[in-house]
Amino acid sequence: MRKNIPLLLMGCGGVGCQLLQHIVSCRSLHSKLGVHLRVVGVCDSKSLLVASDVLTMELDDTSLTEVCQVKLKGSSLLTLGNSGQCKVFLNPEAMGKIIDVATLLGRSTGLAFIDCSASSETIGVLNRVVDLGCCVVMANKKPLTSSMEDYDKLLAYPRRIRHESTVGAGLPVIASLNRILSSGDPVHHIIGSLSGTLGYVMSEVEDGKPFSQVVKSAKSLGYTEPDPRDDLSGMDVARKALILARLLGQRIDLDNIKVESLYPEEMGPNIMHVEDFLVNGLPLLDKGIQERVERASSNGNVLRYVCVIEESRCEVGIQELPKNSPLGRLRGSDNVLEISSRCYNQQPLVIQGAGAGNDTTAAGVLADILDIQDLFV
Amino acid sequence: MRKNIPLLLMGCGGVGCQLLQHIVSCRSLHSKLGVHLRVVGVCDSKSLLVASDVLTMELDDTSLTEVCQVKLKGSSLLTLGNSGQCKVFLNPEAMGKIIDVATLLGRSTGLAFIDCSASSETIGVLNRVVDLGCCVVMANKKPLTSSMEDYDKLLAYPRRIRHESTVGAGLPVIASLNRILSSGDPVHHIIGSLSGTLGYVMSEVEDGKPFSQVVKSAKSLGYTEPDPRDDLSGMDVARKALILARLLGQRIDLDNIKVESLYPEEMGPNIMHVEDFLVNGLPLLDKGIQERVERASSNGNVLRYVCVIEESRCEVGIQELPKNSPLGRLRGSDNVLEISSRCYNQQPLVIQGAGAGNDTTAAGVLADILDIQDLFV
Repeated sequence: MRKNIPLLLMGCGGVGCQLLQHIVSCRSLHSKLGVHLRVVGVCDSKSLLVASDVLTMELDDTSLTEVCQVKLKGSSLLTLGNSGQCKVFLNPEAMGKIIDVATLLGRSTGLAFIDCSASSETIGVLNRVVDLGCCVVMANKKPLTSSMEDYDKLLAYPRRIRHESTVGAGLPVIASLNRILSSGDPVHHIIGSLSGTLGYVMSEVEDGKPFSQVVKSAKSLGYTEPDPRDDLSGMDVARKALILARLLGQRIDLDNIKVESLYPEEMGPNIMHVEDFLVNGLPLLDKGIQERVERASSNGNVLRYVCVIEESRCEVGIQELPKNSPLGRLRGSDNVLEISSRCYNQQPLVIQGAGAGNDTTAAGVLADILDIQDLFV
Repeated sequence: MRKNIPLLLMGCGGVGCQLLQHIVSCRSLHSKLGVHLRVVGVCDSKSLLVASDVLTMELDDTSLTEVCQVKLKGSSLLTLGNSGQCKVFLNPEAMGKIIDVATLLGRSTGLAFIDCSASSETIGVLNRVVDLGCCVVMANKKPLTSSMEDYDKLLAYPRRIRHESTVGAGLPVIASLNRILSSGDPVHHIIGSLSGTLGYVMSEVEDGKPFSQVVKSAKSLGYTEPDPRDDLSGMDVARKALILARLLGQRIDLDNIKVESLYPEEMGPNIMHVEDFLVNGLPLLDKGIQERVERASSNGNVLRYVCVIEESRCEVGIQELPKNSPLGRLRGSDNVLEISSRCYNQQPLVIQGAGAGNDTTAAGVLADILDIQDLFV
């Protein structure tokens, strides 16, 4: 008997479109696994494209491919228009329709909401649909890093929630941590390099290159956000650290995390334009970083931008680490996480690999979807 | 609502007893997770201790603790005798009773068979209980490395089977590979050091110590089997390699794997007594290993005893590897696995950590049990 998993995708940017492509290309594989992923709807920030009858119909592979073509061109879902097979709804009507779909499917066949957006506004919908019996799979970090109140609501039925791709893209970080926790193995210490961008930057300055030059090459290689301060602020790493800390039971908010920014407040986005920062701000930071690199090196150490999580500690920033440790040896943009626990005490459990990229992130989301299949009829 | 997972444990040696202790000590944690593990029976090779009424009763924590005390003293389950709460059955009657329990619980509340034995004879029971609707969690490699026919029967309902602790103890190797596979990310290459014993041996001979001396210290440290040839034959690694290769879809048997033994046939257990091997056989192997170590070293490489799995290749033996690779850097008894796929192409996904020990192995089994909870009512 083939298991049917209805999906509603929120966010069809790079990761969302890649996910749709993976779903289409995995049809025969999933069929062998006895699973069919039935996409009943796709939405972006403005509109929703939904199957005319969500109980029996779906957006077929041709429609899904069209969605990707339209979105990757930067157009709106609206251009797809209505057909016999599917309908388009605009906000605010779209939002009501999403809740209708969740109500209809949530408690009958089940429905998985897939959040591949980067929006902080999906948390409202997600909390409602969880209440309606739906599952949620997230690549979006924002819903998990909102207030503790929202977090508790979202995690009210923890088995229905998956979010591997929020930390280290598809790297099996969350799955592994959940395994350790459910086996009663207490986690003492987590240290990780969870930003490919900052991993690249720190390993390049280690070789003596000026910080400003390294950041600029990272930007031209497409490793950074359009404004590199979005990476250098450490806030993206802080969100990942918060997700891990909350998984370990810490009841903290983003504000409670000590975050080291790699640029001073006076070079912030509200004060300096990005071009000004790159040309005039960045070079002023070279000497400070160089001195720290040299000081670390004289101790046989290297600098890494890491998150550290312990029982009542959650910090994000530069640390001096032994050259000859999994983190110290890290080169390029790989992520690495070291977990120390009762079982992994003398040597940590180490998970390392590509921690960014649409392909890997979408693959992590897809693995999560397959992982919740037993919750569906 | 608390989810009830009935368990029947086969094999109560080191790993089985550790599992029972973990189950008892995790009561309050699992209660918070909304799960209760109800042990309805425990059996060893000779007898079965089972709750008087498997539908409503269980072996309580006092009984489970007694089971561990009795078994760790080397006594039989028989010494626990009958009580109002539970009954003892001897073989062959015990086997019939096990099938009765599986028939009763398999399709109603569900039942998980936990194979923590090291027996090649559990496959018969496991294949029968899978047919009766039961789940199976294994630390025992033998059922998965029997004939393809047995394997296909055992895996007839793949979602009901978990076996993380058959490879790398509790290391999240199988879970991670399954995630990669279900997301349609094709695995091109796996290379791993999956024997803590051989990992220790290879990193010690790298430092110039004679092979014979290293094997003897490994034995005295308790790293090896009583007869170290059980490790040196490579057959334990070959079983792990076979499990991984079959997971990737290779339809092969143990006989199809090219296995390099670290001792020659004429020093085999049927020809030489273990004492004779240790005193007179082993030292004859020193020169050969030393020459290989030196040859590797002159190429900037080290020797590692690894498994290599590719599309149509599955081999186990010594390989020369770059000193500066995750495998080359491996020291001591840690396991490491490198997985290369479409998503992990430039750098492999690396999973590293303790790959042996009753605590870690039992923790892996427990995580597997919690992982199948959605299959239970």
